[in-house]
Amino acid sequence: MSYYKHHVFFCLNQRENGEASCMQHAAQDGFAHCKARVKSEGLAGPGGVRVNKAGCLDRCAGGPVAVVYPEGVWYTYVDQHDIDEIVESHLKNGRPVERLMLAPDVGR
Amino acid sequence: MSYYKHHVFFCLNQRENGEASCMQHAAQDGFAHCKARVKSEGLAGPGGVRVNKAGCLDRCAGGPVAVVYPEGVWYTYVDQHDIDEIVESHLKNGRPVERLMLAPDVGR
Repeated sequence: MSYYKHHVFFCLNQRENGEASCMQHAAQDGFAHCKARVKSEGLAGPGGVRVNKAGCLDRCAGGPVAVVYPEGVWYTYVDQHDIDEIVESHLKNGRPVERLMLAPDVGR
Repeated sequence: MSYYKHHVFFCLNQRENGEASCMQHAAQDGFAHCKARVKSEGLAGPGGVRVNKAGCLDRCAGGPVAVVYPEGVWYTYVDQHDIDEIVESHLKNGRPVERLMLAPDVGR
């Protein structure tokens, strides 16, 4: 069994050269909101959910992005309502959120 | 299929309060060496390997740590030889390196 049931990584990359990056798209807010919700729902910890900061995940064209392992489900999100739906449906009840999934061909 | 065949996350957490953290244990060197080796071996990219920076993975007692998804294999490493073995055996040839795996009960 995986050490964490769901291990979520948020891209928090900040580019200094003017190219698009997730941090220009409220990634910090998404990360912080997800982490707080997971904690308040009592989901956090070994055997449960871990919400992590990550560097560039290299799928910038779909940013802001996050990925949930071990299932390998990739998301793009707009606001806190999207994050709430990922927490409630996927992380709490094991049902990935189809409407927020990144298209398979989205890359850098 | 997973977007990356192997997605590796290195904890690069730096604590300012004096507590132990992976960055005190050459995590930056391990990350940089792994990323360079994966690139030079031609393994990098979608369908291949991605080597990522991450914040605290919360298994600090075994630091420095890294995790490979989607398989959920956790490693602790000492030097570049350990990294070379992970790249060659696991990331290139699909054989996880037993001797470097983190014990299941290692937490924060």
